[in-house]
Amino acid sequence: MARRLILKWMPNQERIDATFQALADPTRRGMLERLARGPASVSELAAPLAMSLPAVVQHLKLLEASGLVRSSKAGRVRTCRLEPAGLKAAEGWLTERRSVWEARLERLGGYLAEEM
Amino acid sequence: MARRLILKWMPNQERIDATFQALADPTRRGMLERLARGPASVSELAAPLAMSLPAVVQHLKLLEASGLVRSSKAGRVRTCRLEPAGLKAAEGWLTERRSVWEARLERLGGYLAEEM
Repeated sequence: MARRLILKWMPNQERIDATFQALADPTRRGMLERLARGPASVSELAAPLAMSLPAVVQHLKLLEASGLVRSSKAGRVRTCRLEPAGLKAAEGWLTERRSVWEARLERLGGYLAEEM
Repeated sequence: MARRLILKWMPNQERIDATFQALADPTRRGMLERLARGPASVSELAAPLAMSLPAVVQHLKLLEASGLVRSSKAGRVRTCRLEPAGLKAAEGWLTERRSVWEARLERLGGYLAEEM
């Protein structure tokens, strides 16, 4: 069973891991919120945060790996942009699983009620 | 700005961290999928997994901390159950943020188009 599920999930598995991992931190969620107001340089992203620039860059790498953010370099400035489409995979996974699970648990509840 | 956002998010912050963290692993997502078919003991959860029982218990602790799973002990057997409501917080956060961000980026796009 577990094996079948793993095979079924393989194509999106790593992307979903990376997206949930990226979202599991308030600093990274704050950076996404900042980027939702428009593109920002790495320094602009770092300015309100009480942490070193290398620490900010580490958070940014996780956000980029997840597809939630992309960045491009012009001269010495790296500009970061939000990719809202990156959220859709995680949101789709949650919505789909929740509805499947709720339906299953309801059927299970109905079955147990009949048995009693 | 970052400070204001942090204050605004405080009530759900830790719960959302824990939920995304719990979801960011294929083994834990597989355990949730198993529990969606009905309650299971820790041994039943561990059976299909190629890992030690203590490792399974660690995954289970993260799932419980996030509110996605609850468990109760009767005699020597701990039975685990899915809490689909735990998914709703994370799903709600994603849906809300995505729609706000998309709207902002659209306005930003419109503004830039006018300026050009």
